[in-house]
Amino acid sequence: MAVFQNDTHLFTATESSLASTLFNSPPFQSFTIFILELSSYPFKNIHSPAFLPIERAVLVDHVATDPDAETFKSSVANEDGDNVTVAGFVLFMPSYTTFAGKPGFHVEDLLVRECYRRKGFGKMLLSAVVEQAVKMGFKRVEWSVLEWNVSAVKFYEEMGAKVLSEWRVCRLTGDALEAYGDANC
Amino acid sequence: MAVFQNDTHLFTATESSLASTLFNSPPFQSFTIFILELSSYPFKNIHSPAFLPIERAVLVDHVATDPDAETFKSSVANEDGDNVTVAGFVLFMPSYTTFAGKPGFHVEDLLVRECYRRKGFGKMLLSAVVEQAVKMGFKRVEWSVLEWNVSAVKFYEEMGAKVLSEWRVCRLTGDALEAYGDANC
Repeated sequence: MAVFQNDTHLFTATESSLASTLFNSPPFQSFTIFILELSSYPFKNIHSPAFLPIERAVLVDHVATDPDAETFKSSVANEDGDNVTVAGFVLFMPSYTTFAGKPGFHVEDLLVRECYRRKGFGKMLLSAVVEQAVKMGFKRVEWSVLEWNVSAVKFYEEMGAKVLSEWRVCRLTGDALEAYGDANC
Repeated sequence: MAVFQNDTHLFTATESSLASTLFNSPPFQSFTIFILELSSYPFKNIHSPAFLPIERAVLVDHVATDPDAETFKSSVANEDGDNVTVAGFVLFMPSYTTFAGKPGFHVEDLLVRECYRRKGFGKMLLSAVVEQAVKMGFKRVEWSVLEWNVSAVKFYEEMGAKVLSEWRVCRLTGDALEAYGDANC
């Protein structure tokens, strides 16, 4: 994604920075990740105290050849004992709209690994977030898209989203952000 | 704000919807509000277990005539026993950037009541959020601006923010959102 956005200079995440800042709270209260795991066989019963995993059986035209299957091997088990593969994720968190006086979700990342694309998995992940929002009485789901990414814009519009033409994202980061650390606070 | 944005049809918040969805968690873990309270006299010592209020003495050219002073009377006390007035607020919440592998803040609302504008209070509120972000080791503060609101764009750029030209906000709300409640979830 950083390569696609020409933003590799901003990419400084490490395994330890992710591990220390994510997975610290029950789902939906703060940063939340739905992980897409694929298996050719039914999953063994998965125990999750806070959220019941969503299981879907899908027919795919042909099984993808995954060059990085070993790297993305899941710790989840299936009935065959064979590999389960992590194919994507969506990272989201609560947001708030004072107009509605209700929470919503902000979707920060949606990623399906390249060899698993064009099979409906992205829609499955994003729909799961929206369905959860409705279930919780939330009134809005928002995310950002690059306006020149026409296939993504089309995909989101087909899912019912409006692409707001007038709003721009303001971002304070890097040195401009750290400068506030020297302020009289 | 709803009037300014031509979005009054989206405004459905009520006192009870706000009261039941805000002020439920310690500051900075979820939805957080800094409230700007003004007084002509020093504040009495304010007790706040989770966050020490930021106090600033400012010189203003002339005292604003506040036609709604009674409505916006604060419950906070000052040393004179005279009115303290709520003049604005900023509502923000944690966000996350996988590029940095670190949290940030998303600023949802920044409002200074009309009769208190052009005195530096907006900058004071937004700076307080950014300073808090730096203090917590957060790596990004983001918010949205209407691209035709040139004075707001200028104000944010002067505070060090970049206005991203390529990103658009996607919003799923109303009937398009509720339709996902009928899905097979």
